Amino acid sequence: MEVDRNGLEILDREASLRLLASATLGRIAVTIGALPVVLPVNFRLVDDRIVFRTGIGTKFDAATRNAVVAFEADDIDPMSHTGWSVLITGIAREVTDPLERDALEAANIPRWAPTGDGRLVEVSTEMASGRRIVPGVRP
Amino acid sequence: MEVDRNGLEILDREASLRLLASATLGRIAVTIGALPVVLPVNFRLVDDRIVFRTGIGTKFDAATRNAVVAFEADDIDPMSHTGWSVLITGIAREVTDPLERDALEAANIPRWAPTGDGRLVEVSTEMASGRRIVPGVRP
Repeated sequence: MEVDRNGLEILDREASLRLLASATLGRIAVTIGALPVVLPVNFRLVDDRIVFRTGIGTKFDAATRNAVVAFEADDIDPMSHTGWSVLITGIAREVTDPLERDALEAANIPRWAPTGDGRLVEVSTEMASGRRIVPGVRP
Repeated sequence: MEVDRNGLEILDREASLRLLASATLGRIAVTIGALPVVLPVNFRLVDDRIVFRTGIGTKFDAATRNAVVAFEADDIDPMSHTGWSVLITGIAREVTDPLERDALEAANIPRWAPTGDGRLVEVSTEMASGRRIVPGVRP
């Protein structure tokens, strides 16, 4: 097991993607009005890509058009002191191919806002890294 | 109740800070090596400021030295379809005043990594906004 300077286990890409596949809520960092913003987003990992929805014409829509974004998902339990976090940095691109869109619609990507889901956006996961709390090791 | 174009309730600064005060885990967006990064971070809201720890000499330490950062905390339950999210954008500054440091140490800011907590960093909350899922309204 490889450990970083903060005492956390370093997860490789494969382990990171396996954890991402188990999650449906992440947080995405984009730039809106020249300022950094972090927003929660429902997603699914489909064919090693992060896929989520945006509302057409929103600031979030504009901010994810061919932009470099950071995406994070985690599951951290302060009580049991267990958990992991995975970080993706990649280019967000709209999924426009109708066949691909249909396939992704079938993946049933959840969302938490009542409206605004006209666009499907994907982020490739070439740059994936993760950390896990080593069981039994406390601060 | 004010609702945004995605059908989510808009929370004012006061409501947003009240929710932040109830949380201890957030996510922070910083720039490392010219790329956006989102990392989970334990924090406490102390005197209307976000306060968290970093390890001295780490990339995260360097990335939070007088930099504009985005900070997000949320509590979203996909099962009951309830939840909220709060976003802060502000300048991260090291807390160097010894008296202030002592006061913050007393606030007992938690952390999830075993080591690396030499610096205290604060982010002001002038730019705070929030959203809440309207009860009973589903996508």
